[in-house]
Order: sequence, then structure tokens, then C-alpha cells
Amino acid sequence: MDKKPLINNNNTADVEKSAVPDEAAVIEEAGAAGEPLAAANAARHTAGFEYAGDGRKRVVIEGVKPEIDDGQFPIKRVLGETIVVEADVMTDGHDLLSCVLQYRRKDDSAWTSAPMKPLVNDRWRGEFTVRELGRYQYTVTAWVDHFKSWRHDLSRRVQQEDIAIALRAGAEMLARASAQATAEDAAWLKARARALESDQELGYRVHLAVSEELAALMERYPDNRLATAHDHILEVVVDDERARFSTWYEMFPRSYSPTPGQHGTFKDVEAQLPRIADMGFDVIYFPPIHPIGRINRKGKNNTLTPEPDDVGSPWAIGAREGGHKAVHPALGALEDFRALVAKAKDYGIEIALDIAFQCAPDHPYVKAHPEWFRWRPDGTVQYAENPPKKYQDIYPFNFETEDWQALWTELKSIFEFWIEQGVRIFRVDNPHTKSFAMWEWLIGEVKAKQPNAIFLAEAFTRPKVMHRLAKLGYTQSYTYFTWRNTKPELIEYLTELTQTEGQEYFRPNFWPNTPDILNEYLQYGGRAGAIVRLVLAATLCSNYGIYGPAFELMENTPLKPGSEEYLDSEKYEIKRWNVNRPDSLRELIGLINRIRRRNPALQQNANLHFHPVNNEEIICFSKHTDDLSDIILVVVNLDPHHTQSGWVNLSLAALGLESGQSFQVHDLLSQAHYLWHGTRNFVELNPHILPTHIFRLHRRTHTERDFDYFLG
Amino acid sequence: MDKKPLINNNNTADVEKSAVPDEAAVIEEAGAAGEPLAAANAARHTAGFEYAGDGRKRVVIEGVKPEIDDGQFPIKRVLGETIVVEADVMTDGHDLLSCVLQYRRKDDSAWTSAPMKPLVNDRWRGEFTVRELGRYQYTVTAWVDHFKSWRHDLSRRVQQEDIAIALRAGAEMLARASAQATAEDAAWLKARARALESDQELGYRVHLAVSEELAALMERYPDNRLATAHDHILEVVVDDERARFSTWYEMFPRSYSPTPGQHGTFKDVEAQLPRIADMGFDVIYFPPIHPIGRINRKGKNNTLTPEPDDVGSPWAIGAREGGHKAVHPALGALEDFRALVAKAKDYGIEIALDIAFQCAPDHPYVKAHPEWFRWRPDGTVQYAENPPKKYQDIYPFNFETEDWQALWTELKSIFEFWIEQGVRIFRVDNPHTKSFAMWEWLIGEVKAKQPNAIFLAEAFTRPKVMHRLAKLGYTQSYTYFTWRNTKPELIEYLTELTQTEGQEYFRPNFWPNTPDILNEYLQYGGRAGAIVRLVLAATLCSNYGIYGPAFELMENTPLKPGSEEYLDSEKYEIKRWNVNRPDSLRELIGLINRIRRRNPALQQNANLHFHPVNNEEIICFSKHTDDLSDIILVVVNLDPHHTQSGWVNLSLAALGLESGQSFQVHDLLSQAHYLWHGTRNFVELNPHILPTHIFRLHRRTHTERDFDYFLG
Repeated sequence: MDKKPLINNNNTADVEKSAVPDEAAVIEEAGAAGEPLAAANAARHTAGFEYAGDGRKRVVIEGVKPEIDDGQFPIKRVLGETIVVEADVMTDGHDLLSCVLQYRRKDDSAWTSAPMKPLVNDRWRGEFTVRELGRYQYTVTAWVDHFKSWRHDLSRRVQQEDIAIALRAGAEMLARASAQATAEDAAWLKARARALESDQELGYRVHLAVSEELAALMERYPDNRLATAHDHILEVVVDDERARFSTWYEMFPRSYSPTPGQHGTFKDVEAQLPRIADMGFDVIYFPPIHPIGRINRKGKNNTLTPEPDDVGSPWAIGAREGGHKAVHPALGALEDFRALVAKAKDYGIEIALDIAFQCAPDHPYVKAHPEWFRWRPDGTVQYAENPPKKYQDIYPFNFETEDWQALWTELKSIFEFWIEQGVRIFRVDNPHTKSFAMWEWLIGEVKAKQPNAIFLAEAFTRPKVMHRLAKLGYTQSYTYFTWRNTKPELIEYLTELTQTEGQEYFRPNFWPNTPDILNEYLQYGGRAGAIVRLVLAATLCSNYGIYGPAFELMENTPLKPGSEEYLDSEKYEIKRWNVNRPDSLRELIGLINRIRRRNPALQQNANLHFHPVNNEEIICFSKHTDDLSDIILVVVNLDPHHTQSGWVNLSLAALGLESGQSFQVHDLLSQAHYLWHGTRNFVELNPHILPTHIFRLHRRTHTERDFDYFLG
Repeated sequence: MDKKPLINNNNTADVEKSAVPDEAAVIEEAGAAGEPLAAANAARHTAGFEYAGDGRKRVVIEGVKPEIDDGQFPIKRVLGETIVVEADVMTDGHDLLSCVLQYRRKDDSAWTSAPMKPLVNDRWRGEFTVRELGRYQYTVTAWVDHFKSWRHDLSRRVQQEDIAIALRAGAEMLARASAQATAEDAAWLKARARALESDQELGYRVHLAVSEELAALMERYPDNRLATAHDHILEVVVDDERARFSTWYEMFPRSYSPTPGQHGTFKDVEAQLPRIADMGFDVIYFPPIHPIGRINRKGKNNTLTPEPDDVGSPWAIGAREGGHKAVHPALGALEDFRALVAKAKDYGIEIALDIAFQCAPDHPYVKAHPEWFRWRPDGTVQYAENPPKKYQDIYPFNFETEDWQALWTELKSIFEFWIEQGVRIFRVDNPHTKSFAMWEWLIGEVKAKQPNAIFLAEAFTRPKVMHRLAKLGYTQSYTYFTWRNTKPELIEYLTELTQTEGQEYFRPNFWPNTPDILNEYLQYGGRAGAIVRLVLAATLCSNYGIYGPAFELMENTPLKPGSEEYLDSEKYEIKRWNVNRPDSLRELIGLINRIRRRNPALQQNANLHFHPVNNEEIICFSKHTDDLSDIILVVVNLDPHHTQSGWVNLSLAALGLESGQSFQVHDLLSQAHYLWHGTRNFVELNPHILPTHIFRLHRRTHTERDFDYFLG
């Protein structure tokens, strides 16, 4: 029998780093230090007796949360966040248990133990905080704690003879613990053991036996030889703050030449940085910046008959000048790109790239790696199609190629290449049409080296596929927000995003528009409609973005009625945006983004709470920090055409308020202050003035007690 | 590349047994036939490239139901039942999928495949029926089906050139399939492949390509080399009908001597069989029948001061005459017991034994295996205790003994011993105070040899512990039914038992009373109260039982006020039951049990449906067979003292009825017939006559159309 301490709980601190050898002892059957605890459940066969494991382990652990798909996928957090872990922990009979949450940085051999505390109904809870980027692991371990049971029983015994015998049993436990203890603790424990068996007065000996001091020391040297570990080692991906709170601005660099009709350059974009920084964006995202294919190039408005000077779609990647690791010569050289990235950083902005795993017919890959594509019986490469539609300017990769390992390796190297150029944020185009297995591997490999890399999944597809991509590793995900415009739609969708298990791994990023999506609400909602969608995105979701100039300038003409494509889309031509137009939303966008920066309540989503309003056109919701030091209350008139009014029914408890209490709400947009009282409060919003309030709530109003002379 | 067929779907039948070699091919990386399909996901490492598995596998499977705790525990079914399996199955992009449910008897190497069909939202469903006792296994396997995608696309293509090229691609697929096919099918496929590429008219060739005949043949030889198997092999324990539908009668054999004051025998019990069979019971359950300890024996009413002739508690097991494998000499010899078991079988009754893993101080185990017990520092064995309470007549086993393997083996052999005597139903006493790990092992081992063995868990403990025992293998479980007496309590508890995941493994057995529990409702409810509890148990739950004579005779005196113990409990003394007393519930019990036997709706629980009544004292619920050929509607007045009336609001859809329809309800207790109409119907129940209706519902009433001469 191994007498070494197994899990080293230090009572003097909440958590403590335990040394490798202690941990190894927990996993009796497992060999090397740092092996998963779950190995404790590994098979052990005795001749003639078939049973996997040590039958004396009496504790069972189930219902561990958070745990995604049996621990197959990690949850996600950002630096400084806490993971609250719960589990059902039970044993047979009436013995008391001890239970610890164990965690460590992945591949770091030392586990740390934090005590878990019982709630009700066999549920236990513990927590730990993540302070480094990368992956953490956690699991739950528990054991029958005979010392705890003994102590509990001792205080209830009444017969002197029983007490005397129990004290002898206790002394044995202390002696055993002393064998694991430091010299100092061992001496103390041995002395205490002798005292329990001494001829001192029985009541005094019981007093010594149940002392907190002894309990604390015994907790440091628990007898957890028969501890049970949860079946799974669970993982957390820890990102930096930008993964949770980011503000994106999408732009096509080629549209920013000061000379009309000329192809813009990275240098031209540098001139836009002050304006974009002033609006409060921290991510500028470019559509693909690579050479654009010439074969089957699309013309303006996605026509098949381009003019000779048509610039084509940036998503038709690759030409004789290069592919996914080259820049379009008209945009400048790679050095220019690196210079832009550096300059943007000076403004607190990161450049995000669009990675689209597909090739124009003249992409160098097609000749260099014909085995990465599907071939048709006529000897041509299979282009993208959805019969009867054909996309002959795009060749998809064949993820069933026998050369899949080389393909994956090359695709991964594209991210690595751009990381070398200073990029760490990627918006991935249509990830749901590429191999799931590849994404899990690729994102894992990239983030292992660059743990603050951010992958935004541009997958507008079926819900379970979108969730799968998030589970596989995508840091953020596009959503259905664009098509959720009415109050019930918004409440239902946001409740799903923020209140279900999905919030452990699926981080939404809300976009009112994209170059692909000019939603009907924006087409017909005018200026008020744009403001409504902007405020909803920016306050409902800690990550949001706009397809910049088109949104600022409230561009709202579709290709044709019923279409969500922009007319004269920037996807197929160079545009000129008069970003200094006086009716631009620029100032308002800047104000809203400043509000987001100043209010941590808006930098997270789990604390979203909807409040009823007796008008279906008015939506009201709040967000707050855990400590209630920042409470934001947003009221939006979803009707962009008419003034709407109604009574808000605040859920006061959610805001830390008591019924009957007065409080001040300060509209951070209009700077107006209102005194509200209790649950029911009246709102009226004229969309032609401003269709929304963004209130900061001050829980306490001034009273006479605030005057120095009140108390005399 | 392995060209063999992988999963052999026969289109001519819903399911088909596939030969071992075919199955083996699915699990490419796994070696031997019969290995789990999940092995297909096993690690495969290529030099310099770390990835576990074949990266070309593009399908993912998640959300498989039913699956208990990641497949750690089996679900339960009885012979002839169907398991409906669902899963989320997805791939990247737009390719079509094929998905099969695979199942087999455990340790039977041949898997059978049944096709799964898509529902909505990436959900697929399939099913299989279990026709043999023991364990079955099932899992889900799916793959990208290029033939299906090709066929789907072909019918949408418009350009002649595209169609011609697609036909050539199709011909290649047919040729590949032919390599796996029988000679006859191969010839057909090759001929069809030639036709697709022939110079016949294009439309005709498309007609040949999309034919159902070809689709069916290609489904038989699918290209599923890159199939994905679900991570887990899931299991079903298949019991016989008695596991789902049983009617228990508990009795103490020692109380049935015809001579007053004399210890009854097994022979005496034989005389009771006709009466018990006539009441419709199919299980007679005896408290332990072993020699009763003499050391620290309890007296009448659980006193510590027994008279010399006190018989003691049957749960104080073991004396010089023997232990768990011996019979109490006063009951007769082992042969007498076997004779009783055989005689009971003639009456359609099985004898169930109480297995209580604990020892009286004079049990032979204590001397033979001192290492199986805990020892106190004073050299005495640790008796059961819950300080300050002491149970000095009971020694529990120490499941942390280093000799646990021998202990487990011996405890298992107790079940095996009684199985040899003809017993296969066991009521296990306080299983929650014995090692969970042992139960999972022991029940698994016993049922491997005796698959129709039934284990009823007598665990009145915390909910998660009760569920854990059911997961570990207990066939049936005692419940909180005894303490659920009001309408909201009953609805909440039965909804939990019948409508949540627990119903996959937790089979409730309802007991209105036991020798340990004389509930307050029975103490004060009188005859009507007893009938209410009887009808609720017998109709809400397909398994139910009574502590027989005490219930028949409405014994209702507690040991003292506030206690749930019977006064002069049969646990500690020999009783004389005047079972022929004219006010006995015997006839009513017999009638209710006949109703249960004749109505399959009452032999299952998943179809339970509550119907609102506008009176909190009246509860109404229905059960029906899947085909609606048997519909039982129960109405109970829960107030045993006053007449109650109200309007029942039937959920017609649940009963297969249309609104506005008339139907007949036939009270199987009173034999009254009522004509009901639509949703709202009036009920009035006088508890002093009969507090309940058990209606059989006839969905159709006779009309003039039923007369021969109606149509002239």
C-alpha cells in the first residue's frame, strides 16, 4: 500500500500547487507523473477475477459541468475568467466525502487542487481562474473521508465507552497521517494522537479531537488512496480579451485610392486608420488580399461577362502572381502589408484577414497539386456547383484526397505565413464547406504556437453545423442575428445564445450587414433602421462588426427587389466611398463604441437579461458586471417609422434593486437623466430623433443623507 | 484501398444480417472481426504528422439518444420492445449522407444494419427490436454517399455537356460497386454502366441513371470506406416481461402456521398459494429466510430486551445453523423451499427472495472471514451505527477490505446459490449502503448466466443514488411513491419517472405499504384511503406490490403517533392474519389485478398522460397501447373522507379522439357505462362507495350507421 500523500490540500490557502509525485500517487495504476487521473480507472486484472479497477473505490462522480460532449471538446474562456465546476459526487452508505477540483495548464505536469464544497442533492461545486493563454485541463477527484466521518460521529456519541474506543480509532488515523507529513506537522500529529489516547479527562480529549486545528491539518494529509477521478480530463481554451470583446470594421483596401478609378493600396488604407480608430474599432478586416484569378473572372454585379479592366472578386484566389501566401500586386508588396499591420497596431487596431480555402482556376496549386482537386471524366477540374448553378471561377479542394495530410499541412501553413506577417485574427470563409476534422486539427495546431490567434467562422448554415465548428475550435462565430429583427425573434435567439450550454463554446459575433447581406430591414428602415440594428448588435453582443463604409453611409439599394445583395457590390468592383458625407453615422458609431469600451457590462454576454415591455415594438434588456458596479439598460424601438411608447417592467432583482427603490438612469446617447422608481417605468421613443436609449443605471439616488450637515 | 463492401445494406428488407467480414471492413484500422466500430476512430500516426484517425472521414455524429452517461451504462428493455435511436449526423458542404443503425447481441460477432432516415435539423432516426434476453449493443455509422449526391445533382442539371460528363462519372461509380457485388448484381451494374456511357439518347440515359432500381442496388453496395462510427458502443439490457409488468405480494412465511403461536413453514405457505394466485399476484416476496442471529437479538417492537421465545428479525442474518445460503430450520428444509418454489410456479407465481448483505454477530462469516468486517481498537467487530444510534445486532461488511475480491465473489455466490434453488427474482435490502462498484460487477456477472434474473433495489435514499443503482444494473427500483399523496406531488413525480431520460433505465415499482412503512395517509385514510393508494399504485405503475396481509386487512395502527412503523410489527414477531375477514380488500385487489392483466395499457408506463381536473382532490390520467387498441382512463378522488366532483378536461389528441366526438367509458370496477362527449366531462366520486373509476375507453360509439338497414 502506497502511504504517500495523494492530493495535497493545503488548508492555509484556497488552492495550492501540489508537486508531481503527490499527483502521481493519485493515479496508482498509471505509471508516469502527469498522466491523466482518469487512468486511475484503467483495467487491473487479477487471475480468475475479472474487474477493471480497484473495487475498493467507493465514490462515483457524474454529471460534471461544464463538459461538452463527454469532454470531447473544450470550453472557452478569456484571461482572468473563472470556471465554476459542478459534479454529482456520491458514495454508498453514510460516510462523508472530500472532493477537489484539479486543474493545470495542459502539458504542465503539476496539477493544482481546489476544494469543492457540497451544495444540495449530492451536487458539489468548485472553481478556478485562468491566468495564462492556451489550454487548461480540469477534472474532479473525490474520496471517502474517514477522518471527516469519524469527527462527525464523535461529536454525537454519548456512551463513555464508545467515545473512548472512538478516540483510539482516531489516534490511529492521526498516526497514519503523520507518516505523510512534514517533520513539524508529523510531530504535532503524533503528540495529538498520544493526547487522544491519554488518561486525560474524556471531554477534554473529545475537545482536542474535534478541534478545527486538527481538522485543518488532517485535510492537508488526507487518506485518499482510494480516490476516484472523473472519467474525463476536460479542457478550457483560454483566449485573450479580444476573443470576448471586439469591434470589427470590414473594408476592401482597393477602394481607398485618393485617385478616382485607381486601385487602392495598403498605403492608402493607412490614411484611413485615424478615422476608423476614432470610431472605436479595434479590428479591421480585409476580404482576401491575394492575386485574383483571371480565368472565368466575374464582372461587375457578379456577371459572367467581365470587361477587360474588371478587378474581379477577391474570393477568386490565385493567379500567376501567386496564391494564398501572396498579396495582390496592385495592393502593394508584402512589406507594405506588414507596415500597415504595424501602423494599425499603433492605433490599437489589429488587421484581420479573410482566409478562403478555394482556388481560382489559375491558382498555382492547381498545377502543383492536381491531386488536391476532384477531376471530371473529361480531364477538367471539378468547379464549385450546386446544380443547376455553376461557379466556374472557383475550384474547391477535395478533402477526401489520398494526399490529405499534405493538403492539411499546406493549408495550416497559410495561417502560419500570415501570423509571421503580424496577423493573428482570421475570418474564415465558409468553413462549413471544408472538412470538420481538418479544422479541429488545424486550429489546435495553430493555437498551440499562437495561443492568442482568433478564428471567426463565417458559417451561415444549419444550427448544429455552426455549433460543431465552434466546438472544433472556432473562437467566434457569425450568427443569425441579421435575420432576427422582431422582439420575439431577438429574445428567443439571444436566450439560446447566452443561457444554454452553447455559451460555453460558441461566441457570437453580430453583424448588421456584410458585403453579402443587405437585410430587408436595412433596405427599408432608413437611418432609424440602421441605428436600431447598430445599437442591437453593439449592446446585445460583446463582439460585433459592420461592413464599414456601406453601413456608415446607410447604403441600402439591393441588386434587385427581393435580393439581399448590394447593387454594384464592392465584391466585384472598386468603389468610392464619400466617408465624410455629413449624414454619415460615423459620429454615432464612435459614441456607441466608446460606450462599449467604458462599460464592462457590455463586454460580456452571459449576464443578458430581458425585461418585459407592454409594446411589441419596444425591446428592453440589461447587462451588468458580476459585482453590479456597471449596469447598462438598453431600450430600443424596433419600429423605424413610428414613435412607440410603453411601460417597461424591470426585473429589479436582476439589477440588484429592491422594489420601491428609486434610481437614476442616464442616457449615454442623449446625455439625458431620468429618475425612475420601482418596477414600472414609462418610455417613449421617436425613431426620427433617436430610436433607442442606452442607459447607465445608478442604483442609488442622492438623498438628504448625502449632505454633510444632515447628521449635524 | 480496401474494395470490399463495408456495410451491407439490403434494399429488399428493412434490416439484414451482414456477414462478419463485411463488418470488419468498416473498422478499417481495427483488426479482428467483431471489434467495436468505434475502433475506426483509433489513432493512426504518420511520421511527422500528428493526427488520430483518417482525416478523409468527413461525417460527424453527435447527440446520440438513448445514451446514458456517454454510454457508460446500458438502457433497459423487455423482449419484443423496440429501441428508437436518433443522432445528429453532419458533414461539411452539401453532399448527401447515408446513415445506419448497427446492432447485435453482445459478444455475437455479426452486426445487423438498419437504415436511419433523416428527420429535420440534421437529426436521423432508426430503430430495432430486441427478441432475445441478455445484452444487445448498438451504434450509429454514417458516411458521405457520393452516389446519392450524384443522383440528386443529375436530375437538376440542364446543360447537355454537363449531363454527359456526369453520366460518365456515374458509370465509374457503378463499375466500382460491381467489384463488390454478387456475380448477378455485378453483371447488371456493368451493363447499366455501359448504358450510361452509350450513345443512346441523353434523356433516356438520365432516366436509366436515376431509376429506383439502380438506387436500390447501389444502396446494397455502398462506398462507405470513409464511414464514421459513433464514439461509443451502446448497450441494452433485455429482460423478460416480468421486469416491466409484475405484481408483488410480500409475506412472512413464519406467520402462516394453522396452529396459533407456532412457527410457520414453507409447507404452510403452499396452502396460501391458491388465495394469492386468485388475487392475481405473480411474485411472492419473502423477507430473509435464513437462520436468525441470537446475539443481540431484538425483541417485539424492536426492543433490546427480547423474551427467550422471541423469534427475532429475519434481517439479522446468520447463526450457528448457517448464513445466507441456509434456510431457517423452523421454516423447513432446503427441499421444502424448492418444493414451494415449484408449486408456486404451477400457480404462475415466482418466489422472490430478500437478499440483505449484512450479518448477525453469530453469522459464520464473522469467524470464517474476519477480514471482511471493520474491527474496533478494542478487538470487537464494528456494528452498524449512526451515532448516537447503535444497531448491535447487525455487522456490515467492510467494502474497503483488501480481500474485496473474495468478498465480492462470495456475495455473488449467494445469488447463484438461490438461482440453483429455482429463484430468479431478488429484492435487495438497502443496496445503497453497499459498494456501487460491486453491484455493477455482481449484477452483470449474475445476469450473464441468468439473463432473466430480476433485481429490485430497496433503496429509499437520495434521488441521484437511487438513479445510480438503476444505472448500475438494478432491474426495478422502489420509489418515493409512498410519500407522494397529493395531486401536484403525484403529477410531478410521475412526470419525472415516465417522461425523462431516467425512464430508459429506472423501472419504478410502487408500494403503498411495506413492513417498514405505514404511511400517514394509510393510518388516517381508512378503507377509502387504502383503495386510493392501491389503485394509484396498480394503475400508475406497471410494477407494484403490497405488504400483503397488512394491506388486505387495512392494518393501520402505528407503533406510536408520528411513526411509520407498524405496531407489533411482523418484523419482530409471528403474526396471525385473519385473511378471510369479510371486510378484507381481497376481492377488490383481485379485480384490480385482473384489470391489469387484461389491459396491456396498464403494463407499461411511458404512455402515461395526465388530464386536468378543476378540483385539486381529483386526479385523472390515461394510459394506452401504442396502437390505441387499449385505452385506460383512471379518475381518483384523493380525499378519502368526502365526496368530490369536478370537470375532467381530456387531452383528446393523446387518446386518439377528435374534438366533438362521442365515446363510451366503461368503469371496469363498477361495470357502469357512461357516454362522454368531447373534452369536458363531469365526474363525482364518493369515497365511501368507491373513490375511483378505472375506465376502459371505447373510441367509437354505435350510431344509426351500424344498423344493417341504415343504408337500405
